[in-house]
Amino acid sequence: MHALPASPSKARAFLDVVRANNNAAAAADAARRFVVGGAVVGRVLEQSADALSRHPEVFSVTDDAVTLRAEAGANASERTVAVARVLDALRAGGSVPMLDGWRDERFAIRASFFAPTELTVERAAAGLFGCPAYGVFVVGYVADESTGVPSHVWVGRRSPTKPTWPGLLDCLAAGGMAAGEMPLEAARKEAAEEAGISADLASNIRPSGGVCYTGLDETGWALKRDVLYTFDLRCPSDFVPRCADGEVASFERLPVDELVRLVRRHADEVQFKPNVAVVYIDFLMRHGFVSPDEDGYLELLAELRRAECL
Amino acid sequence: MHALPASPSKARAFLDVVRANNNAAAAADAARRFVVGGAVVGRVLEQSADALSRHPEVFSVTDDAVTLRAEAGANASERTVAVARVLDALRAGGSVPMLDGWRDERFAIRASFFAPTELTVERAAAGLFGCPAYGVFVVGYVADESTGVPSHVWVGRRSPTKPTWPGLLDCLAAGGMAAGEMPLEAARKEAAEEAGISADLASNIRPSGGVCYTGLDETGWALKRDVLYTFDLRCPSDFVPRCADGEVASFERLPVDELVRLVRRHADEVQFKPNVAVVYIDFLMRHGFVSPDEDGYLELLAELRRAECL
Repeated sequence: MHALPASPSKARAFLDVVRANNNAAAAADAARRFVVGGAVVGRVLEQSADALSRHPEVFSVTDDAVTLRAEAGANASERTVAVARVLDALRAGGSVPMLDGWRDERFAIRASFFAPTELTVERAAAGLFGCPAYGVFVVGYVADESTGVPSHVWVGRRSPTKPTWPGLLDCLAAGGMAAGEMPLEAARKEAAEEAGISADLASNIRPSGGVCYTGLDETGWALKRDVLYTFDLRCPSDFVPRCADGEVASFERLPVDELVRLVRRHADEVQFKPNVAVVYIDFLMRHGFVSPDEDGYLELLAELRRAECL
Repeated sequence: MHALPASPSKARAFLDVVRANNNAAAAADAARRFVVGGAVVGRVLEQSADALSRHPEVFSVTDDAVTLRAEAGANASERTVAVARVLDALRAGGSVPMLDGWRDERFAIRASFFAPTELTVERAAAGLFGCPAYGVFVVGYVADESTGVPSHVWVGRRSPTKPTWPGLLDCLAAGGMAAGEMPLEAARKEAAEEAGISADLASNIRPSGGVCYTGLDETGWALKRDVLYTFDLRCPSDFVPRCADGEVASFERLPVDELVRLVRRHADEVQFKPNVAVVYIDFLMRHGFVSPDEDGYLELLAELRRAECL
């Protein structure tokens, strides 16, 4: 008789999920620095450096660095124009897959959230430069009236026509931050736009911390050096979110036990947009649904913020 | 006219508090490794290494390492006996200040929480070896009935006769973990012993994550490589804790705004046992009392877990 393989603890299964999303620290260390005005603001992978090297009037590419030439501009607006010209040419050339997702949305390139914006680029091109990117993620939950402990979460089901992660589970509301946005305002805006949440209810959105990770994007061209500001929204028991734009196909009110089950299953079979699974793990940790008596608890705690959090 | 110096943001003030408690990463890197049975289980500072080097039959001390000699024992119980003999001699000699705090409580020396115990030592001597030490910290709060948002916290005032940090503010219940204890059981035990909390109420204690830091102890002999398991306990509005042992002189029910004010003041003038201030900052972050729109928010988030979390 052989013993059946033991099922990993909840903490170990969650750790696998977080690690899978935070798997490119070594790639980021080895990547070329992206330097603008003397400041290191990003990390550029091989294929992206090759593409940028085709525009030597704007980018100097060496073994260690991709540097925006001083001639390309002395301030953010001049640099933005010079780089936009390169990105338009690369897009027209059709050889950079991530530029197919062009959105006409501005992304601020900066070394950290409160650092000065060195230039802005089209959001679809941000990954070329491997700069920190910021998002806001709102977890909506219903709590037991007497204990305040979450009993259910409202999860979104992504539209089957979304270009990224179609049909997978998402937060109540989430999104990347555009140039100039602040976290709390962005969270409230996403809640209104994606889940039809009233200004009154949105005023109850509360910051809860955040998670950071460095991952490799699906194309292999880009590092995702992401900082996700997390928020909790306790929803009234009779609240029902409303699909207010085309981002989400439906909302489901899951018992917390079912959320736990799905996050565990996600370790083997993708259920969630991957960074959303990480946000739910952080939520479950904060609200007492992972026991510190489980082996893996401390590694999980550390892994949620092991990446640079700039 | 000169502008008045701007008051630092709440996040920046909190960051100062967390950093002051997490200030010995470089000292830990530079310290001698403590090696038992081939495993690195601790970090030994200069004065402690000198003291241990006076017992070369048990400890081999080089520039890089303090190694428990193989002759001292092949298993935990033999090693425990051999090291106890050294500690008794050092205590009798009177030259090691931390041994004045002898408590007759066993401390497990291990590389991480679930790693095998290599030996046990008297708790007062644990700092000599710089092994990870584990504690449980319970934050007791009262919440607004309708929103679930904390309105008050129950803080303890340490007895003026405690040998460490007399008269300062503490959690509702907290303590170091003895050899063999598990976190949840330890949190419930401390809640009963220190705050007279019933088994019924203690069953509502919920894990909330943890904070890690590497600090220098007051004597300069020891590194504190601490992992604090944190817990939240939502208390009924009519609950009043009871001083059940001599650890705490009194309990105070502070409005959360007052807690915030005291933690900010702590940056300049000590109000709390220092690691308790860090636990309250983590609590305030998780419950939405620090805005992500404040400069310093992400650094604060990272700093709470920057240390090894083993």
